[in-house]
Amino acid sequence: MTARRPILAVHGGAGPASTEGEAHVAREHALVAALGVGWNVLASGGRAVDAVEQAVASMERSGCFNAGRGAVVDASGAVTLDAAIMDGATRAAGAVGAVGRIAAAVSAARLVMDRTPHVLLVGPLADDFALALGVAPAAAGYFLNAGGGSASGAVPGTVGAVALDSAGHLAAATATGGLSGKLPGRVGDSAVVGAGTWADPTCAVSATGRGEFFIRTAFAHGVACGVSGLGLPLAEAAGRALADVVALAGSGAAGGGCIAVARDGTVTMPFSTPSMYRGIVDGSGAPRVAALADPRF
Amino acid sequence: MTARRPILAVHGGAGPASTEGEAHVAREHALVAALGVGWNVLASGGRAVDAVEQAVASMERSGCFNAGRGAVVDASGAVTLDAAIMDGATRAAGAVGAVGRIAAAVSAARLVMDRTPHVLLVGPLADDFALALGVAPAAAGYFLNAGGGSASGAVPGTVGAVALDSAGHLAAATATGGLSGKLPGRVGDSAVVGAGTWADPTCAVSATGRGEFFIRTAFAHGVACGVSGLGLPLAEAAGRALADVVALAGSGAAGGGCIAVARDGTVTMPFSTPSMYRGIVDGSGAPRVAALADPRF
Repeated sequence: MTARRPILAVHGGAGPASTEGEAHVAREHALVAALGVGWNVLASGGRAVDAVEQAVASMERSGCFNAGRGAVVDASGAVTLDAAIMDGATRAAGAVGAVGRIAAAVSAARLVMDRTPHVLLVGPLADDFALALGVAPAAAGYFLNAGGGSASGAVPGTVGAVALDSAGHLAAATATGGLSGKLPGRVGDSAVVGAGTWADPTCAVSATGRGEFFIRTAFAHGVACGVSGLGLPLAEAAGRALADVVALAGSGAAGGGCIAVARDGTVTMPFSTPSMYRGIVDGSGAPRVAALADPRF
Repeated sequence: MTARRPILAVHGGAGPASTEGEAHVAREHALVAALGVGWNVLASGGRAVDAVEQAVASMERSGCFNAGRGAVVDASGAVTLDAAIMDGATRAAGAVGAVGRIAAAVSAARLVMDRTPHVLLVGPLADDFALALGVAPAAAGYFLNAGGGSASGAVPGTVGAVALDSAGHLAAATATGGLSGKLPGRVGDSAVVGAGTWADPTCAVSATGRGEFFIRTAFAHGVACGVSGLGLPLAEAAGRALADVVALAGSGAAGGGCIAVARDGTVTMPFSTPSMYRGIVDGSGAPRVAALADPRF
């Protein structure tokens, strides 16, 4: 089998048009950092599933997005995280929902995938599982927005990554703090395999936006159905799935976006919101990042 | 619009070949009772989403299946329930995962759908939500298998229902106690919209079996993709999706099954296990139930 040129794409969430100031610059830097972390894995012949985990964990640590350290709070003022990861080669998957005592939800999701026969663990018992297996705890003061802390991370900004590795395998991962002001215990699409996260041998998808609409359209699996079932080009499959979300959400709703990669290395990054933080690297040049519409993407 | 003849199908779980004795008779009676409860809704012009909720709640109350009162215990000896409901007309959906203090998980899922902007609530906070909105608590001793109680319900036996109502709308609901001996906090496919439960304007699906494989194949949405995307007959779409589960699970794994109804009233109830408790009623005669392969189904 001929080695493929690897490719990695990341997102830092779909959101409003305002993309200026220090927070904007910090987010673009965090995207570049995440691309570097993930690319190091891929460039040395590593696996897509490791690249997406490490890229997402980097964005969770950054505090620049609504995930990990920068996660927004729920209606009770608490931070709870969702995440999922899926290895397209095997369709192995792991996810956690509504965890609140660990620093990196994607690492907990990876442990669910690798170390249990299950796909989804939720709530305080999922925290217990992750902590017992060595995931770093969220120390007091770790979450920037909890307990009246800084609001620097309080921007819609789920994070995700999709990758194709040199063996031709795909993977996707997504992590989020969820909807600001959500009911306690709410889990969004990021942790729902087939909704916000999906990978199989034909494509890998990570979504961002109002999660309930992505669950109700089985968004990420819908993209895969378009590619492998209907034989659509990746961009058309993703565009159709996003149009379905927008139609279901109705006028006035913000919608969202996604990043997706197909096994031929094609990448698409559509969004219906004014902006979506996103970036891509494929070894042909420096990583590229953008927030607004950009002809290079 | 011409009124359609309503139809309701239920299942009480895919499982082993042993379908004898008092427990078997009790399960068949419980299926008949659930069909009666749901049919009363449909025959009076009621909605599919109400019929599936009430049919599933009836099976949860019966104690005859691995759901509600009869739910099996996890690795810690605790009972936790998962459930989802979806209205095909609007693709509104609600679900709960890993709840342990309420008697009927499907009713909690219905409240998530009707009374919140969310789709999925999990863990102790989902119990709090449901209890606050009036879902009956599980009194001490309610769960037959908790705390060393009777093992009468300790048979694989997720429950589910799919319906077509006289307005031509579809709905699906599923409830379970999950995998016996599961890790605490594990949520299975029943609560994952697109995996164990799905309804849209073209079909409604409720699955049973080893949930992780149904999540990793996005099973129920896969059936819908086959019907609405590829234009397959319902039985072929469901058969393909089940074959995908069996292939992913590998030889020796038990697989599972599903019930599904299309908007033309076609029903299919395939299973790869030796038995699947199931039943159907359409007003043309008495309800029919079976556990083993049966040419009438």
